Amino acid sequence: MNILEQTIENITAGDARMRAAARARLEQLTMPHWALGRLMDLAEDLAGMTGSLHPKVERKTIVTMAGDHGVVAEGVSAFPQEVTPQMVRNIVAGGAGVNALSRQAGADVVVVDMGVAADLSDLAGTEKIYNKRIAAGTKNMAAGPAMSRDEAICALEAGIDMALMLASSVDVFGTGEMGIGNTTPSSAIVAAFSGLPAADVTGHGTGVDDNQLAHKIRVIEKSLEVNQPDKNDGLDVLAKVGGFEIGGIAGLILGAASQKKPVVVDGFISTAGALIAHALAPASAGYMIAAHRSVEKGHCVALDILGKKPLIDLDLRLGEGTGAALAMNFVDAAVRVLTEVATFEEAKVSQATP
Amino acid sequence: MNILEQTIENITAGDARMRAAARARLEQLTMPHWALGRLMDLAEDLAGMTGSLHPKVERKTIVTMAGDHGVVAEGVSAFPQEVTPQMVRNIVAGGAGVNALSRQAGADVVVVDMGVAADLSDLAGTEKIYNKRIAAGTKNMAAGPAMSRDEAICALEAGIDMALMLASSVDVFGTGEMGIGNTTPSSAIVAAFSGLPAADVTGHGTGVDDNQLAHKIRVIEKSLEVNQPDKNDGLDVLAKVGGFEIGGIAGLILGAASQKKPVVVDGFISTAGALIAHALAPASAGYMIAAHRSVEKGHCVALDILGKKPLIDLDLRLGEGTGAALAMNFVDAAVRVLTEVATFEEAKVSQATP
Repeated sequence: MNILEQTIENITAGDARMRAAARARLEQLTMPHWALGRLMDLAEDLAGMTGSLHPKVERKTIVTMAGDHGVVAEGVSAFPQEVTPQMVRNIVAGGAGVNALSRQAGADVVVVDMGVAADLSDLAGTEKIYNKRIAAGTKNMAAGPAMSRDEAICALEAGIDMALMLASSVDVFGTGEMGIGNTTPSSAIVAAFSGLPAADVTGHGTGVDDNQLAHKIRVIEKSLEVNQPDKNDGLDVLAKVGGFEIGGIAGLILGAASQKKPVVVDGFISTAGALIAHALAPASAGYMIAAHRSVEKGHCVALDILGKKPLIDLDLRLGEGTGAALAMNFVDAAVRVLTEVATFEEAKVSQATP
Repeated sequence: MNILEQTIENITAGDARMRAAARARLEQLTMPHWALGRLMDLAEDLAGMTGSLHPKVERKTIVTMAGDHGVVAEGVSAFPQEVTPQMVRNIVAGGAGVNALSRQAGADVVVVDMGVAADLSDLAGTEKIYNKRIAAGTKNMAAGPAMSRDEAICALEAGIDMALMLASSVDVFGTGEMGIGNTTPSSAIVAAFSGLPAADVTGHGTGVDDNQLAHKIRVIEKSLEVNQPDKNDGLDVLAKVGGFEIGGIAGLILGAASQKKPVVVDGFISTAGALIAHALAPASAGYMIAAHRSVEKGHCVALDILGKKPLIDLDLRLGEGTGAALAMNFVDAAVRVLTEVATFEEAKVSQATP
């Protein structure tokens, strides 16, 4: 049994007894019934995931997976591929959006080089980046599989490795990514799992215009036609129309779920990774928290497959883990509601008149 | 000229030059154009309000205004009136929802007794409560004005006092309230300003059933008919169908706006207060940040009048300032985006290809 299979086997459902105990307490808090709405749903979920009425959520880390995509050769992105390593350097230096929002949320950020098409070896000395390079970018999925099945397993296991390595010092994980062109494989993944036409799940990414969007859709259609990914086989979908960083995200989610740690799933690309994780281990969805509703068209479709409703809707479309960082505040808030608000009895407050 | 008139005169538009400078920087940040969406809109707003490219938002205080309502005699609330002082004590003791969420956001909470129908004098020694009592609750608005015009001025000036007194130690204000029955005057205020029927702007409050809701609507209709509030006169609306804590909220907003301090407006009742402030000084809306979309039916109508789109939509309906506390995280986040994210030039990142 390899690490991937073992990890999948280790993922089990949350603690139903602790969920029920959390609900019972939440229903007795000094407020009208369930008056903090979805924050209370989240508190209940967190109790189930962690098996605790005092879920530990203090130590937060956003893991930003970076990788490049052969499909950029088709001209699917508004930005040149050199931006991937440039932004990796920006994140390592602390100057990107994810750094600013993670500082706000009290979260650490680590970057994982899953396969950037540039030499980043000079960064090896910094503690903020990990080297899990599989190759210098995927192959062009419009002409054949993005990666081999073995590479897909490697990408997943790299993500699992990250989760297991960090598990002793992290209570809540967040996913993030950087990879020019990666809305294209993400839309292909959503099309593959949903069965919807590419046009229904493809958006403007970093900012292509309407003509470029029509071209991007054709590239995705061609990729699906050439590769025929099998939606009943998550590994097949990842290998044929995925990306190294998307595999890393899926692996991180599987690893976190196997450790019963909540994982806040960022936006569109992260949710594509979550779909792969869900296909490989449906129970992993029980440990996912959907951070926000992206502007990207396919995101709602992906969230629906996972049965998730996002916490935030602020027209974000940056990725990197920015939405996950923002949503970490709500994870904290939910736990504080569960653990810090007095019950009617504790505070001697009268209840509603029947 | 009284304090109210002077404060209204002191409220001026935000700094358009600084807004433009903020926008120029935000457009150069290392991300696709405006990729952090409404967080960037908020950053621009904050630069305009504070007249700074480094808006100070560190010191946050939620001011929770408490008051009782004569209209509860009509049976409009699911909870007995004694809950108002009980919850004031709960907040002062740190055990309420607003305390938990304020701790998460790094905000202080202070309570103002604007007119609770109970003796709270034993709390006078604590630094967390201020005494601005106008009377032991308003009169029953279904039978005549809730308060006199002089009392309405007093309530507004009490809120202004709080804002001016705290201004030297607070960068961002948040509004909140506690007052059994107060969705009833809030719906009446929204009906008065919008011209919509009571039924279109009245919800279940703390949890009345459908029969009780129909009764609550009739009580509001009667209150509007008996009093005929003049929607062109904010003071008239407040006096006839308002509440002491609602006046306090309106005053706090006016005071904050006069000091060019952002004020995060909580949910339905706070937004009713914001409508009073807006009627008295339309420019005050430029300093309001709408925290969240309440479950209460009239809230969207009120937000539309103010031209505000809320930041959060989590089915909250608690009040107290809980939504304002949660939204404080986004205020912090917006400022960090403006001040901490590197520009393309600073980080040597390539821009989109034309």
